[in-house]
Amino acid sequence: MNEWKVIYDQFIPEHQPLREALCALGNGYFVTRGAAEESNAGGCHYPGTYLAGGYNRLKSKIAGRTIENEDLVNWPNWLCLTFRPEGGVWFDLETVEILDFKQEFNLQTGVLSRKIRFRDGEGRETSVLSRRFVHLDKQHLAAIEWVLTPENWSGKIQLRSALNGKVTNSGVERYSALNGNHLEFLESDRIGEDGIYLLVQTTQSKIQMAQAARTCAFQDGKPVPVKRQTVQEKGLIAQELNFECHKQKSVRIEKIISLYTSRDRAISEAGLEARTAIQRAGGFTALLKTHKQAWSRLWHRCDIELCDGNQAQPILRLHIFHLLQTASENTIDLDVGIPARGWHGEAYRGHIFWDELFIFPFLNFRIPELSRALLMYRYRRLPEARHFARQAGYKGAMYPWQSGSNGREESQVVHLNPKSGKWHPDNTHLQRHVNAAIVYNICHYYEATNDMHFMSFYGAEMMLEIARFWASIATFVEERDRFEIHNVVGPDEFHTQYPDSDEPGLKNNAYTNVMAAWVLQKALRVLNLLAKDRRAELLAQLGINDKELEQWEHISRKMFVPLHDGDIISQFEGYEKLDEFDWEKYRNKYGDIQRLDRILKAEGDSPNHYKAGKQADVLMLFYLFSAEELQQTFERLGYKFDPDSIPRNIEYYAKRSSHGSTLSHLVYSWVLSRSDREQSWKYFLDALKSDFEDVQGGTTPEGVHLGAMAGTVDMVQRCYTGLEIREDVLWINPMLPKELGCIKMRICYRGHWVRLNFDSHQVTVSFESGWSPEVRIGFKDQIHTFGPGETQKFNL
Amino acid sequence: MNEWKVIYDQFIPEHQPLREALCALGNGYFVTRGAAEESNAGGCHYPGTYLAGGYNRLKSKIAGRTIENEDLVNWPNWLCLTFRPEGGVWFDLETVEILDFKQEFNLQTGVLSRKIRFRDGEGRETSVLSRRFVHLDKQHLAAIEWVLTPENWSGKIQLRSALNGKVTNSGVERYSALNGNHLEFLESDRIGEDGIYLLVQTTQSKIQMAQAARTCAFQDGKPVPVKRQTVQEKGLIAQELNFECHKQKSVRIEKIISLYTSRDRAISEAGLEARTAIQRAGGFTALLKTHKQAWSRLWHRCDIELCDGNQAQPILRLHIFHLLQTASENTIDLDVGIPARGWHGEAYRGHIFWDELFIFPFLNFRIPELSRALLMYRYRRLPEARHFARQAGYKGAMYPWQSGSNGREESQVVHLNPKSGKWHPDNTHLQRHVNAAIVYNICHYYEATNDMHFMSFYGAEMMLEIARFWASIATFVEERDRFEIHNVVGPDEFHTQYPDSDEPGLKNNAYTNVMAAWVLQKALRVLNLLAKDRRAELLAQLGINDKELEQWEHISRKMFVPLHDGDIISQFEGYEKLDEFDWEKYRNKYGDIQRLDRILKAEGDSPNHYKAGKQADVLMLFYLFSAEELQQTFERLGYKFDPDSIPRNIEYYAKRSSHGSTLSHLVYSWVLSRSDREQSWKYFLDALKSDFEDVQGGTTPEGVHLGAMAGTVDMVQRCYTGLEIREDVLWINPMLPKELGCIKMRICYRGHWVRLNFDSHQVTVSFESGWSPEVRIGFKDQIHTFGPGETQKFNL
Repeated sequence: MNEWKVIYDQFIPEHQPLREALCALGNGYFVTRGAAEESNAGGCHYPGTYLAGGYNRLKSKIAGRTIENEDLVNWPNWLCLTFRPEGGVWFDLETVEILDFKQEFNLQTGVLSRKIRFRDGEGRETSVLSRRFVHLDKQHLAAIEWVLTPENWSGKIQLRSALNGKVTNSGVERYSALNGNHLEFLESDRIGEDGIYLLVQTTQSKIQMAQAARTCAFQDGKPVPVKRQTVQEKGLIAQELNFECHKQKSVRIEKIISLYTSRDRAISEAGLEARTAIQRAGGFTALLKTHKQAWSRLWHRCDIELCDGNQAQPILRLHIFHLLQTASENTIDLDVGIPARGWHGEAYRGHIFWDELFIFPFLNFRIPELSRALLMYRYRRLPEARHFARQAGYKGAMYPWQSGSNGREESQVVHLNPKSGKWHPDNTHLQRHVNAAIVYNICHYYEATNDMHFMSFYGAEMMLEIARFWASIATFVEERDRFEIHNVVGPDEFHTQYPDSDEPGLKNNAYTNVMAAWVLQKALRVLNLLAKDRRAELLAQLGINDKELEQWEHISRKMFVPLHDGDIISQFEGYEKLDEFDWEKYRNKYGDIQRLDRILKAEGDSPNHYKAGKQADVLMLFYLFSAEELQQTFERLGYKFDPDSIPRNIEYYAKRSSHGSTLSHLVYSWVLSRSDREQSWKYFLDALKSDFEDVQGGTTPEGVHLGAMAGTVDMVQRCYTGLEIREDVLWINPMLPKELGCIKMRICYRGHWVRLNFDSHQVTVSFESGWSPEVRIGFKDQIHTFGPGETQKFNL
Repeated sequence: MNEWKVIYDQFIPEHQPLREALCALGNGYFVTRGAAEESNAGGCHYPGTYLAGGYNRLKSKIAGRTIENEDLVNWPNWLCLTFRPEGGVWFDLETVEILDFKQEFNLQTGVLSRKIRFRDGEGRETSVLSRRFVHLDKQHLAAIEWVLTPENWSGKIQLRSALNGKVTNSGVERYSALNGNHLEFLESDRIGEDGIYLLVQTTQSKIQMAQAARTCAFQDGKPVPVKRQTVQEKGLIAQELNFECHKQKSVRIEKIISLYTSRDRAISEAGLEARTAIQRAGGFTALLKTHKQAWSRLWHRCDIELCDGNQAQPILRLHIFHLLQTASENTIDLDVGIPARGWHGEAYRGHIFWDELFIFPFLNFRIPELSRALLMYRYRRLPEARHFARQAGYKGAMYPWQSGSNGREESQVVHLNPKSGKWHPDNTHLQRHVNAAIVYNICHYYEATNDMHFMSFYGAEMMLEIARFWASIATFVEERDRFEIHNVVGPDEFHTQYPDSDEPGLKNNAYTNVMAAWVLQKALRVLNLLAKDRRAELLAQLGINDKELEQWEHISRKMFVPLHDGDIISQFEGYEKLDEFDWEKYRNKYGDIQRLDRILKAEGDSPNHYKAGKQADVLMLFYLFSAEELQQTFERLGYKFDPDSIPRNIEYYAKRSSHGSTLSHLVYSWVLSRSDREQSWKYFLDALKSDFEDVQGGTTPEGVHLGAMAGTVDMVQRCYTGLEIREDVLWINPMLPKELGCIKMRICYRGHWVRLNFDSHQVTVSFESGWSPEVRIGFKDQIHTFGPGETQKFNL
């Protein structure tokens, strides 16, 4: 892997899954959600991102998840671009002798190239150079090019180019008992001389997806005379091109594909648009040019540059690239959220969890319009969240832990343990803290953009409704003179109930309780931000009166936070009474014990019995808030908070974590970044490699871990640079790990693009003209006012 | 009609169409566009507004256009709520004897009430009190309530409640030769005890529309025991409720309806959502309460209050109401534009023209988020406009004169003259000036809101691409040393080519040429507004170089403007050579000659021969720009411009106009408002009555004229108050017609709500807290800075 390219130059069937995944550039139209029946909590989550990794697992030979073109895959009924010499068999990667193989994925341009040279059973040697991309700017188009050269033979050749609507969801083994067929064939047709067209519909959600393709062959820049025939079977249409080819004379083949769905905006009918688009689209070269230009613009906006040759550079870019495959300017106008695993695999069924909490900070500073669109995704589901709260006996709006298309709760209630093959009740859906994450995201988007339009029309309404939920789930406990929150689960999914109890959930998860108090306080504050009449309008609309606001104020000052051993914040009430876990014994016995839960359950035990965490829970507080902010919140609650207790808390929980979530290393790295730089850097590298090396052993091919990917990028963006917005000032307080050397990036802050260059001695801040006349930057307790075009240097 | 209510208290079959229309409150899901085949320039424009007039023409007895419930309409197969006494016939308005009838439509609450008391053939007297509404806040719900009282009889009764998917487009007689069937039945079912469900799909655009309904009967607040049976036929499902009723004992019937389409956001599948919604919806009374609250909020934002008892008040509110039925907060998240005739009738097939030019000023100051959404509707169709320009041999983006779902040109190329029954070629599609209107709307939205997010990400791109189109359509004419624009049509549709020419279109339409020069200048200016990097990014993306910008600058200073008789701006080059029209002769012969074009063509003549206009064309310049702005533009073009020439131009064209468009009186009223207040007021009243009295004699039932409706509201909002934004100052310069007395309103200016009270002596300006610390208000050449909460009074 060089700075921009992922190169894989040997064909080894057992190569590492991520590396192949990186090289496979599929199309982002991805259908997920196991159940086809809505009665079965189904609902087809259908995004329509422009591009996704589309894990083309050569090992199993079937892509199986994207409805797009896979070249050089060998199952004839399924393949989308293949060939055979007259009288030969269709190309089959497993039966030919591979003489030469090189795959290169260029992150800078979003182009996948493959070179393969092989010998078939008849001794014919052929080379195929392929390039393909899904167009970044023209979001409905994709293109594949082959340069096919018969190295030692001449003769007739048959090329088959297909559109395949028979793909199934079959990329996650443990879901294989679920129905993986989500597509219903509607129609297919030949269009014009060189085109084919296919229309399918998702079975439950009835979303129509239309594809059209145009395939042409060229030699020396001129069209090759071909005889065409169309092959149709239900769900698949192919066109076969028959032509002569000559030894050592290359034939260039272009396949241009268009893809529309009935969810797209500004369309008449998906099929009509797909057919029209393919007629209007230019050739491969012209499309490639505008595609590259679009990536160049996007990288100009999103890149983070480290010093030359820094090891972390390519993986950082890889993470940014994956993030931009999941959400980009092309998704702004679609009604899609950010699923935990991107659109790169079927794990978690494309569901939306809380992972956007780790993703917003990057987007806020790069593509704020996209952050806004993601918040609007939540806003559209506010009525459903209101219903969900009422159903559970609460007020306001309660967003579910897992959700999809229509925003209802989609969490599983039982969970399959692949270690034991047994199904266990699953209480993880009690993670109400997702409702704090949404408010946190709204506040941070607003701080970075000052977008009062959004806050006034949408953001405030969500904040008030969520605050109301927290107020209603909190119960006052007289003897303690405190509010408590019961029956919830914190971020650490190893603890979902008390060992001696049948009741699901825990009491007073510290993270949840502190966040709830913080949300209530923020909701009260946002009211002061609104114009008077808008405030009155909104309060009247929601039926919130002064008494209710007083109650919020009261709860926000009286929430209970469990503590033990002095100033150790208890993960939840009674955590300290759990048994200590014998880490060494289990590490010796099992080696990798990240997924301790599965090991213990297979033994008939449960992590609920132990002081053993899957991921950061209490420590999330130190991740999300600065020591000053946390101190304010605790003091408002009437608790003493000594910043020196932070390292003690970190140490306490660090000893008790299996890091079973990819988010765990990230959070530990962040919270240690200033106090234990060496350990922090180790954690950072672990987080950085999560997907690149598939550290969990098999979860990456089921979908990347987007929260961890974005989080590592944000480590460089905000944590090491000390970037923080406080009282309308953008503070910079860098502490670069020695391993990083320097950081160069551009961020968008309140309509200004700001160039920030950090090295070990200096920070250079350059201001571009922007939307406000001046902006304040804080450095070392000094506030500096920047006008457009100004540059200042600060010595560290 | 009182201040808020449209009351109609006699049942007369021949009553005026608009008055009935006002009283009919249908559901806004409206399917239009004659052609089902996409090859036939089809495309189903499908909006999904929450509420539309739904002209229920009692005269013809069939609603026929909305797919929603019409009560008391008598064709059994089509009706949606009706009844019969056992052994009797289904209620039929034409055969019963009407004893009492009252219809009341309340603009303030959006509720239609009807009372009917009648005697049937068997002497049974029955009264039905009905109320209905489409919910403003819960946009997927509608409700009907009946209070049915057998006045002089007892017995069994059968109530039929249906969902009807068999409706057709048949509201415009001259379209009757077109296929009016746009719905295809998919499925229907009973749901639970009291519900029914229907799913249909539009034939060409394949949009699924799902409805569900729940019907219940109550007596003395308790459910009435009913026997239910379901009646199904293809495209229709009904539930029959059989129950006993007793003399003088009222039965209350509730029908709650939900409606979803596959275009809605945050849904899984339309049918599932419709079924779920109907289960969750409360009863009629609860829904009515929240519906009224929502209207109250909307009126608080949108009302314009005149002095007590002012005649214009109810019609002004009627216009605001119709506007809010077409576009509201509920349409923000749908991809819909504003069609010329609202969603109130099928005329113009729901197409989008330039009428939003007259509608934006009201929305910018009331619901700026909605203006933004309407501009995004245009932005999404930018790729299609680019294609359209290329197809026509131009550069940049050329928005078509008429468009729908996917943004392509939908204008007719031949036109039926209902006077002669003949088809004539139609060149009106050459109205390229719609491309100037879009830029004008972008600029005015930006001025009112300061929304740099929008301008930077979307607005500027549209402006640059449209400017590029204007630069490419302009040709340099050496001998004149000027740029000219050929083959276009101006707003006046009476002139579409020269009398002696076969070539379509005209040369140098003054309005078009001046607007083109103005657009080029604005596009150059917007570049300076953008942050430096965004500017560079955008120019690179669009491939615009310095040379091209220089050319724009050049054209914007060298556009030709035709003049004659000294300082009369010629409508187009050669206008002065046309024959004068004998207005008196034709008025004597035909009476109403508004649609002179049809009269002349029926005589074998053409308005192309005469100095006779359908509507304001040159005068649009005085409508859109202040004298100062116009002077600047003309001087930049190297023409002398004497503000005193304005009245001469107005007089010249006033004599030569048939006012064949509802927009004409409006524009004349505006341009005369300060120079000839008496004549201006007359024109204003004409414009005000356009739809209320159906002054064109039959066009109103085919759809209201939304441009004229919004325009009259804006006359009061901006023209009489002299509201104008100039160089970041909101100027106020009132000159109230004596007939108006006073005006009270609230406007939203750059995030501040500003209360403005005008009377003949004084203006009071009150500032609410808002998004910027201070705002500048100009009055009589003085600029006053307002902080939040401040109030100032100015004497006139």
